[in-house]
Amino acid sequence: MVQTDQTVQSIHRIFNARSVALVGASADPTKFGYMTLNSMLRAGYEGQIYPVNPKGGTLAGLPVCSSLKEVPAPLDLVVIVVPANLVPGILREAVTKGCAGAVILTAGFRESGRPDLEEEILSISRQSGLRLLGPNIQGINYLPNKLCPMFFPVITKRGPLAVVTQSGTMTAALSEWAADEGLGISAAINLGNQVDLCESDYLDFFATDEHTRAIVMYVEGVKNGKRFLETIERVASRKPIAILKSGRTAAGQKSAASHTGSLAGNNEVFKAACRKFGVVCVDDLETLYDSAKALATLRSPRGNRVLPISSSGGACTLAVDEAVTKGLSVPELPESFKGELKKLNLSALATLSNPLDLASISSDHFRQVVSLADQKNVADIFLLNYGDPVVGATEVTQHLAAHCKGIVAVSFFGGGEEEKSSRIRIQELGIPVFPAPERAIRGIAAAVWYARFRQPQKEAPSEASSTAKAGAPPGKGDQRFLTEIEAIKYLKQYKIPYPKHGLARTAKDAVTIAKRIGYPVVLKIVSPHVVHKSDVGGVLMGLNNGKEVARGFNEMKDHLAKVLPEAPIEGILVCKQAPKGLDVIVGALEDPVFGSAIMFGLGGIFTEVMQDVSFRLVPLNREDAQGMIAEIRGYPLLSGARGQVRCDLDQLTELLLSVSRMIADQRSIRELDLNPIRLFDKGLMALDVRVMKQGS
Amino acid sequence: MVQTDQTVQSIHRIFNARSVALVGASADPTKFGYMTLNSMLRAGYEGQIYPVNPKGGTLAGLPVCSSLKEVPAPLDLVVIVVPANLVPGILREAVTKGCAGAVILTAGFRESGRPDLEEEILSISRQSGLRLLGPNIQGINYLPNKLCPMFFPVITKRGPLAVVTQSGTMTAALSEWAADEGLGISAAINLGNQVDLCESDYLDFFATDEHTRAIVMYVEGVKNGKRFLETIERVASRKPIAILKSGRTAAGQKSAASHTGSLAGNNEVFKAACRKFGVVCVDDLETLYDSAKALATLRSPRGNRVLPISSSGGACTLAVDEAVTKGLSVPELPESFKGELKKLNLSALATLSNPLDLASISSDHFRQVVSLADQKNVADIFLLNYGDPVVGATEVTQHLAAHCKGIVAVSFFGGGEEEKSSRIRIQELGIPVFPAPERAIRGIAAAVWYARFRQPQKEAPSEASSTAKAGAPPGKGDQRFLTEIEAIKYLKQYKIPYPKHGLARTAKDAVTIAKRIGYPVVLKIVSPHVVHKSDVGGVLMGLNNGKEVARGFNEMKDHLAKVLPEAPIEGILVCKQAPKGLDVIVGALEDPVFGSAIMFGLGGIFTEVMQDVSFRLVPLNREDAQGMIAEIRGYPLLSGARGQVRCDLDQLTELLLSVSRMIADQRSIRELDLNPIRLFDKGLMALDVRVMKQGS
Repeated sequence: MVQTDQTVQSIHRIFNARSVALVGASADPTKFGYMTLNSMLRAGYEGQIYPVNPKGGTLAGLPVCSSLKEVPAPLDLVVIVVPANLVPGILREAVTKGCAGAVILTAGFRESGRPDLEEEILSISRQSGLRLLGPNIQGINYLPNKLCPMFFPVITKRGPLAVVTQSGTMTAALSEWAADEGLGISAAINLGNQVDLCESDYLDFFATDEHTRAIVMYVEGVKNGKRFLETIERVASRKPIAILKSGRTAAGQKSAASHTGSLAGNNEVFKAACRKFGVVCVDDLETLYDSAKALATLRSPRGNRVLPISSSGGACTLAVDEAVTKGLSVPELPESFKGELKKLNLSALATLSNPLDLASISSDHFRQVVSLADQKNVADIFLLNYGDPVVGATEVTQHLAAHCKGIVAVSFFGGGEEEKSSRIRIQELGIPVFPAPERAIRGIAAAVWYARFRQPQKEAPSEASSTAKAGAPPGKGDQRFLTEIEAIKYLKQYKIPYPKHGLARTAKDAVTIAKRIGYPVVLKIVSPHVVHKSDVGGVLMGLNNGKEVARGFNEMKDHLAKVLPEAPIEGILVCKQAPKGLDVIVGALEDPVFGSAIMFGLGGIFTEVMQDVSFRLVPLNREDAQGMIAEIRGYPLLSGARGQVRCDLDQLTELLLSVSRMIADQRSIRELDLNPIRLFDKGLMALDVRVMKQGS
Repeated sequence: MVQTDQTVQSIHRIFNARSVALVGASADPTKFGYMTLNSMLRAGYEGQIYPVNPKGGTLAGLPVCSSLKEVPAPLDLVVIVVPANLVPGILREAVTKGCAGAVILTAGFRESGRPDLEEEILSISRQSGLRLLGPNIQGINYLPNKLCPMFFPVITKRGPLAVVTQSGTMTAALSEWAADEGLGISAAINLGNQVDLCESDYLDFFATDEHTRAIVMYVEGVKNGKRFLETIERVASRKPIAILKSGRTAAGQKSAASHTGSLAGNNEVFKAACRKFGVVCVDDLETLYDSAKALATLRSPRGNRVLPISSSGGACTLAVDEAVTKGLSVPELPESFKGELKKLNLSALATLSNPLDLASISSDHFRQVVSLADQKNVADIFLLNYGDPVVGATEVTQHLAAHCKGIVAVSFFGGGEEEKSSRIRIQELGIPVFPAPERAIRGIAAAVWYARFRQPQKEAPSEASSTAKAGAPPGKGDQRFLTEIEAIKYLKQYKIPYPKHGLARTAKDAVTIAKRIGYPVVLKIVSPHVVHKSDVGGVLMGLNNGKEVARGFNEMKDHLAKVLPEAPIEGILVCKQAPKGLDVIVGALEDPVFGSAIMFGLGGIFTEVMQDVSFRLVPLNREDAQGMIAEIRGYPLLSGARGQVRCDLDQLTELLLSVSRMIADQRSIRELDLNPIRLFDKGLMALDVRVMKQGS
């Protein structure tokens, strides 16, 4: 945390620089050196700018220094737009001038096959404490200091949103949308190669930045998964973050990889990480912007009850359709409230239910109805769906937002010139305005989700269990997978039920074991060469007596000797066959970016074909485990809905927590599959276990 | 069709009216009578306008007639904004003036509890031939004639899109979006109560209107389902239609019902109807607009191969993610083409794969690359993803759209002032421009889908089979459901396989039948009172010999006598038990709007919990049946993917066609459930059938 604090202080000094040198300033309008100087001037920077160019002279009325050394004063910041090979020398000079940081717009490093240059500048940074932004970026813009060393665009509309992205175009687009609409931004940061400062550092800074209410991010991958997780855990509880990670499809991941060379990791795991730590994670650019807008402007909703009010029945219906889809509640209105509504002088065509179609473009009707609805506490969120030129919309909205206990959001469309001017005026009052009802609902849903996350109902994640010892797995180390007999030991250690069983070397053994544990039994081959036992005929089920067991044993051994003559057979596992129940699977996998994650699903075709699975990162807490179970589409099968038997979900929750502890403890386990786990109305049982060892 | 032709001619005369009276014209700016006159003047109408108001005088320099009779010339059209009770009288006068139609903006009819007034004006229309638009509408706008009797908004930007909606706000929003972006519209029609002319009539008109290239619709329900189906079948093959029907959730349906009183019907059936006839059906307002824009501007794509090209790697990745999600192909680029690309003088940072990240804002690079890609036929659609201020984007896009065999669409964002002006200029050239990559892909996907629909590979729908006779079902008519033994007769008639079986009145019968058909057998109770047999203990499976059958028969009879003493037992059905296989269900249901529809799904929990089902309207053609099977998420289970056994999909297709024929023939069947149908690698078998009779 000391390091984090220092980094935040460095970024603070950089963003609030009072003196900046621009190395590579140019008089040629086609050059980045010109565009960047021009941006700084247009942004209205009030500190000192020192253009640096060996040619000297003046630029835009400023005297040009022939080198950084010649700058006649100490510097807070240097901005660099000269070719990559000159950058190391300039950084060394910047150190001597006392700079806190360098914004390196220049490209031509790792992305152009020069990782050595990148190493060199990183080493200068490490040795000197000079912090680097970039290289290979469009620039940065910090509006509270009017500091805009960014060749494009120059945004001057201040607002509550910090934009952090891995794409110059997204930086520009999100900033421009916010500026054009009247929302405004506090900062825009283009990440580039992130050789020193990275997304996590900026998140930590904006968490403390009083000018920023929410952070919007577009990334194609993250630089350091573990670090990113620690950071969002810390930051998201203080300040809302909305994120779009591209690469949700395999083709998209490939594209992202060629663009920034980011290691994408498993997209579901990324989403699971975001969900766990309260980051709003979305799938497309406009929903990203809408979510960020809501998070940056709305007070925290008390609940999820939404009441759309409109001059337009159509707009109401679209809002309700989307609200239901997004899990918001559209409650019936109490009769007493409807009674009071009837006393107001509303249109005879008004529909007095939820949604409320006023059938009127009178802003006063909006005022009266929403004030009353708020007084009667019929909803947590009022969506003013202005469709049509509602005169006075701005004033009424301002009044309602200021006086209502519920939160107020606006959708405005189909209102012509009246709409175009009101939209910006309302947004400038800090009340979010959306261009379509569905987009308003998406923003509101993000705010509701985040508010729920922030409610202090969290329990600490389950710690690695103290009794278990980390260490080499009990396997022999020469195969990628443990045999089942080895893997079962882990289940025992973590109290995960497994059928009664024994390992038989001979048919006689098998019969003795079967007799002891009781019929019917299952036979399973045990060989380090055989991972998918049933695929090779290594499983026999439903054996009901000693004769069947003996015959089964011998047939299986003969069969295996034939199909896999090289496989060493350690024996045959005799297991008591489990009664009927519902099968699920639990898996643990290692994500290249975020580390271990747990997967849960209904197994078989539900997992493979329907892809109905949920993910969370290790370690799980109880809420995570419950959430994983509840969020699969097939949840009603487990919960006893629709005529199904309710499974023992408490035991299933415990099992997920046990698996999480196992994975956290046993660093030697890389992947785990419990497939199937059979659930009963009371209790459960893992019927098969597969463990892939670390380093495989 | 004669009637349709006459209606189209009437609408043509109305829209192209050369003389219009406005009854209720007013000098008071707060009145609709003022706003509507103002709109007509601002739209630049070049025919004669006759304001009518008993007060006389002049309005906007036009002499005011004190009544319609006083108008000194014949009239094509009357526009009415006076109170509802005056409307019938005015219509009668309009008839005497020779009007072709009346645009009735006035509200206060059915929606205000005056269906009698609505009946009256309809009766005038029917008797006289005067066609009615509305009542209860914002108005209409037909731009080729600069005719805009609509109190809001006044859109004058002409373009290829006809807007038809059931909501004034949607009419305004879609028109304004199109006007602001440079796309423009041919017409905007607000439907209102549709007492005479309805959505189907306007569709027929726009199908013939040379100024319209595509139709965009927002509806909350349709006036006449059968009529609507016939119309879209006729129109969509000539002109593309994009439609949003609100009410996709139960809460939304309720809202829509209170807004327009529309009978929503089953949303899935509506979608199925649209899919069948080639109407692009979407779920939200912006996607509606984006789809319509693409359909109104793009040439028909030859295929679904998309190549996004961008200055921004990020924009490319978002486009690819969405393209894959929407079923477009993002093909690998041939090595030979990449070789040729390398010869161009592109940026060293360019990524020469699909998507193509040029890492350059040179419009010339776009020109070179796309021209070459088109020459080499590497894609059917080129998405120019301009992110950044690409100078010259307009000219290059125009050149490429004019010269490429592939189609060209644009996404432009994050490009500042350059973007804002280019966007409109490009759109005005008739090339669609979208504000985000995902939205561009959604538009393109609509155009691709429609192009596929239009390919003349359709087969005629299966006719009602000529051998089968319609008539009363073989049931006794006093219960809602047929007994299974009655329902089986239909299966036989339509050659749908059912297990060998017989009806037993005694235990001895049952044993005899079982012996004849072979073991194991299933027993099922036959009683008109028992629809869900297994719920009451009316099914016994896996009986392997005569003893078990006899005991089963007696137990079941005794049990039923106890739990349902009133139920008349006709006997017990003894069926040969089917071998294992994969179970699916097929159902037929009657939608209140569109009539009979067929449902297909995997059955059981897949249908009830996962809602993984597909719908089509009766009658099905072979392509419909194949589409129904292929579009469920669980399709891989049937097709033999991922280690599953391939089921007999040919037989399943035949079964769907048979069911469609049965439903078309047998008007006495209201609902049908074949649940389950067991599929084998060769053949299939319906294991249970339930028929609900018409009139239940």
